[in-house]
Amino acid sequence: MIQQNGLNLSRRIRRTPYTSNVENHGVTGFSVVNHTLLPKSFQNTVEEDYLHLQENVQIWDVGCQRQVEIKGKDATKLIELITPRSVENMNIGKCLYVPLTDTNGGIINDPILTKIAEEHYYLSVADSDVLLWARGLSIGYKLNVRIREPDVWPLAVQGPKANLVLSKIFGDKINSLKKFNFDWFPIEGTKQIIARTGYSRNGGFEIYLSRPELGDSLWKKIWKAGESHNIRPGCPNIIDRVEAGLLSYGNEMTVENTPLECNMEKFIDIEKEHDYIGKKALLRQKKYGVRRRIKGVIFGGPKIPTITRPLQLFDTGKGKIIGQLTSGAYSPRFKKNIGVGMIDIGYWEEDKEIEVKVDETKVCQGLIKNLPLVG
Amino acid sequence: MIQQNGLNLSRRIRRTPYTSNVENHGVTGFSVVNHTLLPKSFQNTVEEDYLHLQENVQIWDVGCQRQVEIKGKDATKLIELITPRSVENMNIGKCLYVPLTDTNGGIINDPILTKIAEEHYYLSVADSDVLLWARGLSIGYKLNVRIREPDVWPLAVQGPKANLVLSKIFGDKINSLKKFNFDWFPIEGTKQIIARTGYSRNGGFEIYLSRPELGDSLWKKIWKAGESHNIRPGCPNIIDRVEAGLLSYGNEMTVENTPLECNMEKFIDIEKEHDYIGKKALLRQKKYGVRRRIKGVIFGGPKIPTITRPLQLFDTGKGKIIGQLTSGAYSPRFKKNIGVGMIDIGYWEEDKEIEVKVDETKVCQGLIKNLPLVG
Repeated sequence: MIQQNGLNLSRRIRRTPYTSNVENHGVTGFSVVNHTLLPKSFQNTVEEDYLHLQENVQIWDVGCQRQVEIKGKDATKLIELITPRSVENMNIGKCLYVPLTDTNGGIINDPILTKIAEEHYYLSVADSDVLLWARGLSIGYKLNVRIREPDVWPLAVQGPKANLVLSKIFGDKINSLKKFNFDWFPIEGTKQIIARTGYSRNGGFEIYLSRPELGDSLWKKIWKAGESHNIRPGCPNIIDRVEAGLLSYGNEMTVENTPLECNMEKFIDIEKEHDYIGKKALLRQKKYGVRRRIKGVIFGGPKIPTITRPLQLFDTGKGKIIGQLTSGAYSPRFKKNIGVGMIDIGYWEEDKEIEVKVDETKVCQGLIKNLPLVG
Repeated sequence: MIQQNGLNLSRRIRRTPYTSNVENHGVTGFSVVNHTLLPKSFQNTVEEDYLHLQENVQIWDVGCQRQVEIKGKDATKLIELITPRSVENMNIGKCLYVPLTDTNGGIINDPILTKIAEEHYYLSVADSDVLLWARGLSIGYKLNVRIREPDVWPLAVQGPKANLVLSKIFGDKINSLKKFNFDWFPIEGTKQIIARTGYSRNGGFEIYLSRPELGDSLWKKIWKAGESHNIRPGCPNIIDRVEAGLLSYGNEMTVENTPLECNMEKFIDIEKEHDYIGKKALLRQKKYGVRRRIKGVIFGGPKIPTITRPLQLFDTGKGKIIGQLTSGAYSPRFKKNIGVGMIDIGYWEEDKEIEVKVDETKVCQGLIKNLPLVG
């Protein structure tokens, strides 16, 4: 049988401790993130998975969210150097979204920073080798840090019933965990980090399993606890993610884009006291303003399939390209197509009419929307 | 239709200027290298493609071999810093295989270095973000260099008839190009680099196209020139690669392995005068010797499919794990299965008998072989 989009496997594209489980559950497609398999579809449609996620609970193999562990006397110094976000007041047990920038202010990655202990952090990274970036900097600056990729494999439990499932296993302490906080929980005689985080707006948890040999039994234990709550295997859902305005590094933004273009004002402290890479560029951009910005779009026409290649946007009736949608799909909530992408200055106004070129022959009418589309 | 190994596409997994062409030619599977699509299979079997490559010519979309351009007063200084190979005597117009190492001597990447001009280089990288590594180092060391990923997309023409095809387009100058040298050739009014290099032992060329908008017409021009030579679309062939002992970063070796474990003695100058990252570790390892080393294996039993997960190797009859095969397939040349992988000390002797566990139930007898299996 000939399929255009097969994925040819090799050791270079790493399996996770959960890959066998997602295969048993009938995974149909993967993506590759950080040289690691990310399940992207199962037997259901994206729409069915979306509807299920809104009311139930799902288990996601997000082992591809590799960790960059930074430990040592200069760990905080290095973190302050690589992000425009201040970590001065960060407490142990907290998780923080920290865009990393290069000299031009371009985004290198947008990880979740976890503070394990004093001078001990994890960066849970999107799809670029932050390990090499951090190591290169630490060698050049002669910082006293140890940087490595620990054998830690995140497993996400997402959806409004995630706490019901995990509290069966870990007790009521799960319920007291606040958003963007983590704590330590026992798993088969070991202590493991569980954070109240996740790449969905429905709430949930991420288990930072540091013992890959326990991956299979952990998966099965969660599955069993979830059966009465209609648990399903899942993955970051494109409809949910776009509605929530959750960005994907490499899709909505690349190293060519700055945090200001990506609406990350509230996640950065451009003027922070510490010197950081990109400070000069971001101060300048803050002063003069950005020329493009990520916005949402809701548009009509027939249901589109999940966007796999950017859709161009046009000034209505004028044929001028004003941006592109890099992620999107049909939303059952809006009963319209939705998307997110970088839009030129002059077209940011809520409900501004624009056109979306959905394929070679069809253009649909759409409206610019602020993100998130749903709070 | 349900397929376990589908690849779900998005902008994050970049298309190349040639992707439409490989789709038109009926590509059936991709891999992902450097966040970019690498075609890995077409309508034929790996064995058919192998046999074709030995006697004909193929066109390969290797746009995923991304370039890291290093330019500026300190460019050579940075290159000397990141590789144990000396580039002191490297001339403009040369290509050099340069393993890059980290502090422990572990391999960061194994690119081809191309010297474009004085203090101006390309690194044509395997699957890791050397761009971030080089930039991190250059910022820390305050080097006067500009490092970027240029809009350059390699296209390979490989096989014994590659020169016949390319000389039709570029004239006799193609034939005078020596192995691991490059020169400039005209393409539609532009000047482009063509190197006599490639990831095959059958000879060939790589065109470093710096004008992606010319990709489609370049592909079609080569295809037309190749039709009378039975040209086919192809990709790095696993059988050919293993026979040649050509290693794949991420498969045979990772950052956990050093150049000495990978038989790269002739590609490095451990004692070179310039200080480089990993020098101390490699000097030590040279003194005390390595405990494991990449070797070939030829083994019997039924034809195996292309190896997608490491096969464990055992001491014959003793059940002790002594290494693993990370790439391999059935070789029509040897009429046996072949593979390559990291083998423990004590088992390196030519024709040493070992066992290969080809699946959960079957163990086959094999012999250790020096690489390449075919010169």
